[in-house]
Amino acid sequence: MEDFFDVLKVNEFISIIRQMPVLASEEVRLESSGWRRLARDIISSEDLPGTNRSSMDGYAVISRDTFGASESNPVYLDVVCNVSIQDAPAKELSQGLCAGIVTGATLPPGADSVVMIEHVHELGQGTIEVRKPVAPWENVMLKGEDIRKGDLVFGAGETINPRRMGMLAALGIERVMVFRKPRVAIISTGDELVDISQQPGPGYIRDVNAYALGQMVVDQGCAVDFLGIIPDDEESLQKAFQKSLENNDVVLVSGGSSVGNRDYTVKAMSNINGLKVLAHGLALSPGKPTIFARRENQCIWGLPGQVTSAQVVVLVLVIPFLGHLQGDPDPFAMKEEFQVTARLSRNLASRYGREDYVRVRLEKDDEKIMAVPVPGKSGLLKTLLEAHGLIRIPENCEGLLKDDQVRVRLF
Amino acid sequence: MEDFFDVLKVNEFISIIRQMPVLASEEVRLESSGWRRLARDIISSEDLPGTNRSSMDGYAVISRDTFGASESNPVYLDVVCNVSIQDAPAKELSQGLCAGIVTGATLPPGADSVVMIEHVHELGQGTIEVRKPVAPWENVMLKGEDIRKGDLVFGAGETINPRRMGMLAALGIERVMVFRKPRVAIISTGDELVDISQQPGPGYIRDVNAYALGQMVVDQGCAVDFLGIIPDDEESLQKAFQKSLENNDVVLVSGGSSVGNRDYTVKAMSNINGLKVLAHGLALSPGKPTIFARRENQCIWGLPGQVTSAQVVVLVLVIPFLGHLQGDPDPFAMKEEFQVTARLSRNLASRYGREDYVRVRLEKDDEKIMAVPVPGKSGLLKTLLEAHGLIRIPENCEGLLKDDQVRVRLF
Repeated sequence: MEDFFDVLKVNEFISIIRQMPVLASEEVRLESSGWRRLARDIISSEDLPGTNRSSMDGYAVISRDTFGASESNPVYLDVVCNVSIQDAPAKELSQGLCAGIVTGATLPPGADSVVMIEHVHELGQGTIEVRKPVAPWENVMLKGEDIRKGDLVFGAGETINPRRMGMLAALGIERVMVFRKPRVAIISTGDELVDISQQPGPGYIRDVNAYALGQMVVDQGCAVDFLGIIPDDEESLQKAFQKSLENNDVVLVSGGSSVGNRDYTVKAMSNINGLKVLAHGLALSPGKPTIFARRENQCIWGLPGQVTSAQVVVLVLVIPFLGHLQGDPDPFAMKEEFQVTARLSRNLASRYGREDYVRVRLEKDDEKIMAVPVPGKSGLLKTLLEAHGLIRIPENCEGLLKDDQVRVRLF
Repeated sequence: MEDFFDVLKVNEFISIIRQMPVLASEEVRLESSGWRRLARDIISSEDLPGTNRSSMDGYAVISRDTFGASESNPVYLDVVCNVSIQDAPAKELSQGLCAGIVTGATLPPGADSVVMIEHVHELGQGTIEVRKPVAPWENVMLKGEDIRKGDLVFGAGETINPRRMGMLAALGIERVMVFRKPRVAIISTGDELVDISQQPGPGYIRDVNAYALGQMVVDQGCAVDFLGIIPDDEESLQKAFQKSLENNDVVLVSGGSSVGNRDYTVKAMSNINGLKVLAHGLALSPGKPTIFARRENQCIWGLPGQVTSAQVVVLVLVIPFLGHLQGDPDPFAMKEEFQVTARLSRNLASRYGREDYVRVRLEKDDEKIMAVPVPGKSGLLKTLLEAHGLIRIPENCEGLLKDDQVRVRLF
């Protein structure tokens, strides 16, 4: 088998793909901004809460009036008013006075704390008995305690999760600038492929990649344009690339990228005006026959046709790349929530200079979590289905040992 | 403050809500089935692969012909044909014969293994030299090795993730029966609420819940119907409930559910024909003022109006419930991928008989991951934003101790 001329190390490859600029930003309504990344810093234009508010139902008081209060020696206060949510109480409390107040309502001037209703006995005729002292600002949410006018609320690049969306709503931010969603074309090529509606002949297989890779891309918030199965010849591929570059930021073509095969993918790319093949072959297993070609803000990825290899490359490289395009400042760092620490169940050999990803199943062995490599020929789909995730063998090592601690990147 | 008449324990509450039937199923196209749950078992109607296939480029051989082959003592075989992907080779190999074959192509009858091209020297004139023996079925994907005709591929209730979608594509399954998406109405109530487009007066706050809870529900694959802010009175709430029950499976109303307030929510529910309040008050903190009312296959949840409490109830109970409606067989089990094990940074007291959820931040302390409770009044949004997740203090305990091992449920 021929070898690739110029196999890139994974970190060299990553530095090439990260040179692609982040996508333009667009304004969306807050309710449509879920999981998008902010394109601008959000600065608060107000204090939140906007006033000092009670966090309890009870009585707004001057705290020093209550010092020393107890069951046996209560303090007596006169109720001057009752403050409800809508009120902006204007009358200042002076010594010996208090105001009934509900949770969330604004404290009258002079009041600096709230006695919970449980610690008060209402005597009627506008007088209460306080049986427990309160500290200054007890049971009060201070003006600006959540956020102050002028504060940085969220920085550009942060993702709008439900909690952040709630904070933006609280600040009255109806529209946000976010990075645009990548538009991704999905192409499958290979003479062995048939549409899933077909009964495949002897050596044929149905087009798995369009579905599996398509869903992986949809899960990254991308708009997907399915171009179907394109015959594995230079002219058909070139036409398909040209068509997909009309409307898309990223084109993913799986199949036809292996050297030793006919390699029409690279030839078709080379024929497209302005498109430059920047990487052809990667020190990654599986995933060696990966291609990356760029034309200004657009790019085409050539992915392995083999289903499991294609999915590994998408997981390890394409998904972080799509995050990069959407403004993720650190897309190639493994996210904490998608990993589990485990012990490797057996030795795993690897070739020095190549980054290997091995499918593993997680198993509980007493208290320990074991990462058990999933055996089986890499062409089989079940090896992916039986695995819970991938472990990485770094390029500068010759393998991992049984009982080594590994980080499993969960699917 | 009055107490609830009949506070339910969390497990009693869960057994009530789990009595709701799973939603009906519907047929969707495979490409639209991502992350839906299968409503039927998937049984394979064919073998995958459909034939014995080569997993390498090389020569299909009879393995015993190669026994003893070495660099110094090669075996000579005659090439009778070259098998490409599309071929269904009919001619049986007999002793001393072989066939050129590409990856994925079907083995000719008689062949039981493939010699990789790297271990062959082509002598020309239809003869090859084999320099390494192959074992029977080496470099061959066996007919049915991935899946056999009649096998259970995926059981009802399993989620169609990208890898499973790929397997369904491989089997030619163009449409799948999945459970219907819940239709969820979102209502906010409370006289203190204003729309996010408004500048709130002194004690008012903008409607955070519609956005935060709405996004949480959207993330569960639900179709969301936003009904906006409904005035906190019996008639308005009753009308809103009636309207939302016309088209929705689930209604989430936040606010107005606290006893000690006016409690119009329960009154409005009681006025609706056939709707029965099955739970009012829950031994859960935060989340005590939770209501659940059911009418056949529909239900209304009354959630706390307080933003952080409402989000905790949605995380801990509503999201698993929406999973249950969509066929998740074990929705209340904490999913492995959304949890992290950590050590608690300080003692945490809790009330016996009540399940507590405490917001924590994760911090690295040397090798250990610490779960640090996030201080601050529960009404503040920042306590949610600073936290990475929740820890649960079970109901039958009076708290947790510093250094206890805890499972953090990540947001």
